[in-house]
Amino acid sequence: MLITSKSNPLIKTVSSLADKKFRRKTGVYLVEGVKSVKECIASGCDVRTVVCTEDHAPSFPEATFVSDSVFSSISCEKTPQGVIAVVKIPDYGLKPPSGNCLLLDCLQDPGNLGTVLRTANAAGYTEIYMINCTDPYSPKAVRASMSGIFFVKLYFGTREAVLSALDGVPIICADMEGENIFGFVPPDKFCLCIGNEGGGISAEVMERSTHTVKIPMRETCESLNAAVSAGIAMYALKNNK
Amino acid sequence: MLITSKSNPLIKTVSSLADKKFRRKTGVYLVEGVKSVKECIASGCDVRTVVCTEDHAPSFPEATFVSDSVFSSISCEKTPQGVIAVVKIPDYGLKPPSGNCLLLDCLQDPGNLGTVLRTANAAGYTEIYMINCTDPYSPKAVRASMSGIFFVKLYFGTREAVLSALDGVPIICADMEGENIFGFVPPDKFCLCIGNEGGGISAEVMERSTHTVKIPMRETCESLNAAVSAGIAMYALKNNK
Repeated sequence: MLITSKSNPLIKTVSSLADKKFRRKTGVYLVEGVKSVKECIASGCDVRTVVCTEDHAPSFPEATFVSDSVFSSISCEKTPQGVIAVVKIPDYGLKPPSGNCLLLDCLQDPGNLGTVLRTANAAGYTEIYMINCTDPYSPKAVRASMSGIFFVKLYFGTREAVLSALDGVPIICADMEGENIFGFVPPDKFCLCIGNEGGGISAEVMERSTHTVKIPMRETCESLNAAVSAGIAMYALKNNK
Repeated sequence: MLITSKSNPLIKTVSSLADKKFRRKTGVYLVEGVKSVKECIASGCDVRTVVCTEDHAPSFPEATFVSDSVFSSISCEKTPQGVIAVVKIPDYGLKPPSGNCLLLDCLQDPGNLGTVLRTANAAGYTEIYMINCTDPYSPKAVRASMSGIFFVKLYFGTREAVLSALDGVPIICADMEGENIFGFVPPDKFCLCIGNEGGGISAEVMERSTHTVKIPMRETCESLNAAVSAGIAMYALKNNK
């Protein structure tokens, strides 16, 4: 069966998932593109449906097939590849970390957030706590994570709840006023905190920090891109031992 | 005098500068936004004209003033602030580096390129050689550089000419097959090379490399964002001494 109508209920559901409100209501999100969907399936994520154009039948025989124009209507990409998956948003509850972890405080740009998840997976920071961040399950953030989101655990909560889950864990804040990160030897187990693009780390989290570290910069530079500084800090702390 | 017509010759020139062909022909580029234009002027760049809406007269008294609708027609931003400058593209010729430098080989995304310039300025890699890259003077790249482009020297040339300017300088290529960058002690003076987003470093540059280094990653991750890996590599090499 080929779906050719945009008013088909499945198509309407898939379309709605570009919107955070509907992702929250339904507990699922979208993964788009051949490579991403394949990696999502291989990673063991709970894939509910794959929707494809017919040319992808050899790779995704179990998919629901739609016409090109219906696919265009659900795609979030400028140049749709013809494959999209509906995937369950995992719920890990909110618990203390088992290893080194990341705390993201009010990160607002979906591209930055996705890039941070990509780097966190690469660097082995697989438990990521989020306070007031942009939704990591938006199509833009998922795309920027380049499948990294399938391999990390995301924890959500109010600032109080998150800080309470991190009780007893040293929190290292990346901040302009900190000590040089390249001379800093972190404690055995720690949480690295990255703040908002413009405003940095919130006062409440700062107050809970046990260390603050900075990436040294020439005086002609005011700040680094949030995803770049997160990457530099994650790798520096990992390798400063 | 207030310019209210989009067919004014200055306005037509400014509009044309979003296009690489006209930047190359005229040797100037655009800098947009209050902060960026102020930093551009303060950095000593050769600012040819500032075009503003009238509300910016207190900050830019020497500017040429235009109506809001004319400004919208020349702006490259989604939410125009009402200030744009026409700035001369500096020509540093093509000469050997005086300190540690960067070689960008076929970097294609303007956002990545601008972010690399921002980080390079921060980390003190102020001489940057480019082979077949996207134009760093495009509005998108300039914006992503967050004023970093005003503080670094950009060198352009064919692959042969650039490699010849780097004659005798150790070239460290960032590549998946290299040795772990975090155990690597670089030579006293070096050139760090970053390759294309998808394809990596070209065979011709690889052949000239004296060292290859990699950023270690978990096996679930295939690659890092180009701007993030450039940032990690720049700071790692700088601090591994």
